[in-house]
Amino acid sequence: MAILERNDKGAVAHLHMNAPERLNALSDEMLAALQDEFDQLKNDQSVRAVILSGSGKAFCAGHDLKQMTAGRQAEDGGKAYFKDLFDRCARMMMTVQQLPQPVIAQVHGIATAAGCQLVATCDLAIAAEGTKFGVNGVNIGLFCSTPMVALSRNIPRKQAFEMLTTGQFIDAARAEELGLINRAVPAEDLVTQTAALAETLAGKLGAAVKVGKQAFYQQMQMPLDQAYAYTGDVMVENMLYRDTEEGIAAFIEKRDPDWTQ
Amino acid sequence: MAILERNDKGAVAHLHMNAPERLNALSDEMLAALQDEFDQLKNDQSVRAVILSGSGKAFCAGHDLKQMTAGRQAEDGGKAYFKDLFDRCARMMMTVQQLPQPVIAQVHGIATAAGCQLVATCDLAIAAEGTKFGVNGVNIGLFCSTPMVALSRNIPRKQAFEMLTTGQFIDAARAEELGLINRAVPAEDLVTQTAALAETLAGKLGAAVKVGKQAFYQQMQMPLDQAYAYTGDVMVENMLYRDTEEGIAAFIEKRDPDWTQ
Amino acid sequence: MAILERNDKGAVAHLHMNAPERLNALSDEMLAALQDEFDQLKNDQSVRAVILSGSGKAFCAGHDLKQMTAGRQAEDGGKAYFKDLFDRCARMMMTVQQLPQPVIAQVHGIATAAGCQLVATCDLAIAAEGTKFGVNGVNIGLFCSTPMVALSRNIPRKQAFEMLTTGQFIDAARAEELGLINRAVPAEDLVTQTAALAETLAGKLGAAVKVGKQAFYQQMQMPLDQAYAYTGDVMVENMLYRDTEEGIAAFIEKRDPDWTQ
Repeated sequence: MAILERNDKGAVAHLHMNAPERLNALSDEMLAALQDEFDQLKNDQSVRAVILSGSGKAFCAGHDLKQMTAGRQAEDGGKAYFKDLFDRCARMMMTVQQLPQPVIAQVHGIATAAGCQLVATCDLAIAAEGTKFGVNGVNIGLFCSTPMVALSRNIPRKQAFEMLTTGQFIDAARAEELGLINRAVPAEDLVTQTAALAETLAGKLGAAVKVGKQAFYQQMQMPLDQAYAYTGDVMVENMLYRDTEEGIAAFIEKRDPDWTQ
Repeated sequence: MAILERNDKGAVAHLHMNAPERLNALSDEMLAALQDEFDQLKNDQSVRAVILSGSGKAFCAGHDLKQMTAGRQAEDGGKAYFKDLFDRCARMMMTVQQLPQPVIAQVHGIATAAGCQLVATCDLAIAAEGTKFGVNGVNIGLFCSTPMVALSRNIPRKQAFEMLTTGQFIDAARAEELGLINRAVPAEDLVTQTAALAETLAGKLGAAVKVGKQAFYQQMQMPLDQAYAYTGDVMVENMLYRDTEEGIAAFIEKRDPDWTQ
Repeated sequence: MAILERNDKGAVAHLHMNAPERLNALSDEMLAALQDEFDQLKNDQSVRAVILSGSGKAFCAGHDLKQMTAGRQAEDGGKAYFKDLFDRCARMMMTVQQLPQPVIAQVHGIATAAGCQLVATCDLAIAAEGTKFGVNGVNIGLFCSTPMVALSRNIPRKQAFEMLTTGQFIDAARAEELGLINRAVPAEDLVTQTAALAETLAGKLGAAVKVGKQAFYQQMQMPLDQAYAYTGDVMVENMLYRDTEEGIAAFIEKRDPDWTQ
């Protein structure tokens, strides 16, 4: 069985992390498999939404500590390996954000450290009630410095700081309150609710969602005037799509659009 | 009847969008009327707070799709017109933020797309319970890229992304939870509560509110040390106002201030 | 009695503002005492967490208005003094954030203006139920421009703007909802809960918390790719600590770490 399974259903691609014995840790193999799938999805116009989930007891428990420890055997004590590892991990996370399609984390069990970062990085997240979220590296002396990049862009400052320095977990209801996930649902509804959200997204005009998602993250890093200049250009481009012309015409004429995509 | 009515009451200016048959859409005419009024208010020291509301079933339903569709007749398919339109819209939104006086959105019915952007752009917002908020352009193939500039500076990231990509509406109670509005009130209290808030603001020292509002948005875009250097200078300037000297003296002496403004 | 008392208990330093007759105002003397203690703590590796509290009816009521008014007697009307005052205040606030150790505000009674800024500036805050928070300088004609630098980096935009322009207070429960504090607790539990949080923090590896706290605030001001490049380097450095190697080994071997620090 592959470490990362992919099953497509219509325009929805479903990536399923499958290393339950290691709590789907982001090992070298898992990172490579995720990077590879996301790179393929980037150019796949038939896919309009992506679901990311995990098998076994946890969604993802972060980096693979045994593999990292093995890396210390190198002459430099692991320095070069660690640098490369965090580079690859950050690259994978940024690829999720740069993907044209929205990515939904379907979260259950536990999401810790880089696993919590993965939830924060996905555009949307639905979690089973009872799921635990933590950035608890501090408990073993390794502050979750890269995970906090994503976490601190999702939830308020003092709450992020508390999670990072106490290493304590929050549950799915609290994660929803703080904005880390979109909502907590009963465990038995997790699959259907995530699938329903993915279907909703897949029903939209892919080209519009693509430029919109890209602009969403770009404009957030700009001062207000630049953000408006940039998104104004995006709106003009979007208005000139044949399918957008059709979408607006259909709306005015109160009928369904006849989209080519 | 004018497309935009203005009624002043004491130091409170009340702008009322009045194109109910078009759900107060931000047509060329409405944008021009709003820009014109805000430009006049900018230099009007007798006004210390502004209320913005709409007539009919909706606060504002966003851009005028029929007018935009008509714009496609140009030789360039509307490209130049659309660019100019989004430029004018962004300019109006930024004028609201640059206005010396606080602007309160008094929201009812529906606020969608650029109408939701207008709510997000106003400094403060009170909405009638039951009001619906959405950035639903994605449903017709036109991602709300300019509205999201304002929306994503008001509410958490994942919740903004969900509204933008699903096109689904949230109600006023949820808008309050997320920070898009200051509060939801029963529909029958909307006018009185907005007026009361405006009166509260109008009772403050106009010069202090003016420098404070400007500094609020400026410092938010700066790194911490720059933000402190800049606002420190603002505080010094503020301390040297004759009316601030009087305000502090009155506070120490436990009496009402005798302000010239 | 000193204006600022310090009592250490194990690895927790407790700073107690002690000018109850002036509601622990940030006078020249109080600012100097705070700066001095924080400067000493900066290099004190035996301290791993800091608590900041106040005696009397208020945590802190902001700047000392009588002292500021006296400053107006100078030939320049106080301009140079005010500039220096706000510089010293901002420097003290930034020192809190730059301190290697986490700082917890233990808040009771009232926290207004620069006192509210101090709460917002601390990394963590626990408040007694019933505590009032406000940035109410606008009521006396002095907009809380420097306090808002910290406030607007803690709570949503519209809610910050409302507090700043209405001068109205919020209670501890609302402060928790908005993210200004980590939580409100019954008054009788304030001391024990703050101490328990400080103990939790003091039990972590100090070197990891130090690099993590510094990176937390730095990365938040960076674009995403820079934030990842920077925190990736922090993670590598952290991985190479002898105590982190031991912490990870202990975790894998399911035993307690034997840390040198």
